[in-house]
Amino acid sequence: MKVKGQHYRTIWFAPPVVFLIEQNLLPFSFQIVKCADFQATCRAIKNMTVRGAGAIGAAAGFAMAQALLAKVDPLKAKKEIEATRPTAQNLFYAAERVFQAADPVACAQKIADEDAASCQRIGELGSQLIIDGMRIETHCNAGWLAFVDYGTALAPIYAARDQGKNVFVYVDETRPRGQGARLTAWELFNEKIPHAIIPDNAGASLMSQGKVDMVIVGADRIAANGDVANKIGTLEKALAAHEYGIPFYVAAPTATIDLQCASGQDIPIEERSEKEVTHQSGINEEGQNSTILVCSPGSTAYNPAFDVTPAKYITKIITERGVVAAPAALFL
Amino acid sequence: MKVKGQHYRTIWFAPPVVFLIEQNLLPFSFQIVKCADFQATCRAIKNMTVRGAGAIGAAAGFAMAQALLAKVDPLKAKKEIEATRPTAQNLFYAAERVFQAADPVACAQKIADEDAASCQRIGELGSQLIIDGMRIETHCNAGWLAFVDYGTALAPIYAARDQGKNVFVYVDETRPRGQGARLTAWELFNEKIPHAIIPDNAGASLMSQGKVDMVIVGADRIAANGDVANKIGTLEKALAAHEYGIPFYVAAPTATIDLQCASGQDIPIEERSEKEVTHQSGINEEGQNSTILVCSPGSTAYNPAFDVTPAKYITKIITERGVVAAPAALFL
Repeated sequence: MKVKGQHYRTIWFAPPVVFLIEQNLLPFSFQIVKCADFQATCRAIKNMTVRGAGAIGAAAGFAMAQALLAKVDPLKAKKEIEATRPTAQNLFYAAERVFQAADPVACAQKIADEDAASCQRIGELGSQLIIDGMRIETHCNAGWLAFVDYGTALAPIYAARDQGKNVFVYVDETRPRGQGARLTAWELFNEKIPHAIIPDNAGASLMSQGKVDMVIVGADRIAANGDVANKIGTLEKALAAHEYGIPFYVAAPTATIDLQCASGQDIPIEERSEKEVTHQSGINEEGQNSTILVCSPGSTAYNPAFDVTPAKYITKIITERGVVAAPAALFL
Repeated sequence: MKVKGQHYRTIWFAPPVVFLIEQNLLPFSFQIVKCADFQATCRAIKNMTVRGAGAIGAAAGFAMAQALLAKVDPLKAKKEIEATRPTAQNLFYAAERVFQAADPVACAQKIADEDAASCQRIGELGSQLIIDGMRIETHCNAGWLAFVDYGTALAPIYAARDQGKNVFVYVDETRPRGQGARLTAWELFNEKIPHAIIPDNAGASLMSQGKVDMVIVGADRIAANGDVANKIGTLEKALAAHEYGIPFYVAAPTATIDLQCASGQDIPIEERSEKEVTHQSGINEEGQNSTILVCSPGSTAYNPAFDVTPAKYITKIITERGVVAAPAALFL
């Protein structure tokens, strides 16, 4: 995607350095971070400088290649990479594949290139589901910033726009970290696609009033039976869409599918710091970064980062290999 | 309820002055505001110094009495009061009743006293539904602060606690204004009731894992057929509770029932400023009030304040006259 006229991937590798867009500073500041070694790349994954299934996958592949280039004990490095975040399947997929590769650098680059190509294809296939004038709801950020390029949930929207279709996007703000309000809204504004940020609470209400024609979300891991782990709140949208007969699509590359997980119950769900709930970061009236307390002091908070949406609530999964009702159809 | 050992109602009337707890400053500062005339009380309703169905109702009754005391044109004053906020039935109920009254001050006081008494009775009746050890989810604030005293959704929890039952409360933070995170959490902390604030997105996930035994919410208006207008997001919780077979209770005094509305479609839904979504207020690291931008600049937001939950998703309505499946049972 382009930022101020220049094309950027969200992450790239000029060995031995990994370059990343600092996503914690978006949408208020656009900065590139350099990770000189695999430990720095691990920290970038952990602190969410880079986030989103595909981008985490590329980062993990690059980190594994960095470790091998630096002659770090490969198994130890792989374990350290895998310990950064537990839910995104792409992370485990990429670390393992580079670990096994004859040419780790080439393999890591290939994973990133495949991610971009898969997302482009997801955009083409998904755009065929979008009719001119549709109002589409999305949750969290499964856009360009969550992958190496194009994104998954947003890729069909970008492709539909390129085909001349008018779309309007309802952007769930996606508490607690606000990836919808910050990242998806920033991408759509950057791409001049009409949209409105809504509180996560408003989704079912809009659906009940016939104001949403389609929901598209991404995925952090898809189990063999089609259950999907994605950002917390995805399940609520899926239940509401199911109730009101609105198509609910999950867009993800096949690298997100984990055949080792029979169902969603086998997918580990990350719990994150309660401070993500009790505090909010943004820009104060003086234009400076500021973090404020927004909850009653003394109260505790609970912050599960993902939820599992059972396959029965998902209309179709949009992958680079086709739009399918269940993962099994992709591996025949 | 008691704050630092002293009993307070959320709103009271020492003619001609109305006294209110300034709820926009909670939980960070506890201050009492004085409204010397009916226009000041109207402003307090509009800017949400006072909020919550019953407290708004009491404020509207007091404002009507203030106007009549000051010999303001009664019909003009009533219209001004009714224009402050469109959704809460209690507001229209109280303004009309005081408008018609022979002794407006006594009538307004009676409405406030009835609200407190109704809430106390709702607590007694609702507490019979609570079993020792239950984990209860609530949305927004339908506690003491939303009424004159006791509250509705929280009143059964307080009564159950007084009966020696252990309860744990999951508090939906309730974006965009955070009445759960700020007000409900503050009340529960003040009352030493174990609780955790959760992002609104986490409700369905907790329910799907069997971590929620009951949901109790308040209501801003209940239609004749039992449809309920309440804080945006209530519908999402009701759909999830319905899906997972979890009892979903609405607690409200009968003053919240509007027999003029045949169904939820007849209830006007307030839309509020997009700034409530794009900005957040709280306390910065220096301990000062601060408002920060938390969304992508340039993006618009959409902020409906309430939604309508169809009666079919509501297990029972807890009123001061009994726990019923539908409002009709109360008016036989």
